[in-house]
Amino acid sequence: MIDRISHVGVLVRDLEGTLRELEEALGLRPEAVKEKGSNRIAFIPVGGDEIELIQPGDPEGRLGRHLAERGEGVHHIALETDDIDSQLLRLRGKVDVLDAEPIMGAHGVRIAFVALRGSGLILELIERVRPEEKD
Amino acid sequence: MIDRISHVGVLVRDLEGTLRELEEALGLRPEAVKEKGSNRIAFIPVGGDEIELIQPGDPEGRLGRHLAERGEGVHHIALETDDIDSQLLRLRGKVDVLDAEPIMGAHGVRIAFVALRGSGLILELIERVRPEEKD
Repeated sequence: MIDRISHVGVLVRDLEGTLRELEEALGLRPEAVKEKGSNRIAFIPVGGDEIELIQPGDPEGRLGRHLAERGEGVHHIALETDDIDSQLLRLRGKVDVLDAEPIMGAHGVRIAFVALRGSGLILELIERVRPEEKD
Repeated sequence: MIDRISHVGVLVRDLEGTLRELEEALGLRPEAVKEKGSNRIAFIPVGGDEIELIQPGDPEGRLGRHLAERGEGVHHIALETDDIDSQLLRLRGKVDVLDAEPIMGAHGVRIAFVALRGSGLILELIERVRPEEKD
């Protein structure tokens, strides 16, 4: 089951510049700036939601190629689910599954990317962590 | 003040096809499909959040040109605010204000689009309706 939008993932070329602009203009401040593989990532809380800024580090990686081809802007909508394995099983054959098996995401939880076949819209499935499993 | 992400706006060429795909794959169903000017719009509740699908009707309009230039995918992140007038005043000179004055949005509330100068990220400001003002 899909519970909610967890976050919206945005590709940028200049993470610090975008963070500065969001803070100066809108008063939005990042919770954390992390390295994940070659990417630099910032999560910005907006009420109970989040914007994820991603500055791809590898121009040949999936995100780097998307940035080169499509430019800066929103890359994906992340949808929270209580069971990513059964969601992925259900999605096979219906959408393009970009990660056949869940991978570990920047939040330390299991994620998988899929793309709608008609529009190419990229969705991230992100497994909800039950409160008792949180650090 | 920015309260939360209200919705994520996605440009598509085929509204019905995208709705069918989202329902068959993810069980997500639209709350309403509306005409707004030349555009066809569907709001899809996802928990307390929403995805807005927009099929632009005017290829020369702002959304139609964006679709032609950038392709299908997420067009904007809508941020809810309690006071759109003071937000717009505060934003002038800091970001590109695309609507100098608030306009009436698909939800029947006042909205305005702005774009970050560095990344071009498009944000919609959407004025929160106080519970006592709702129909």
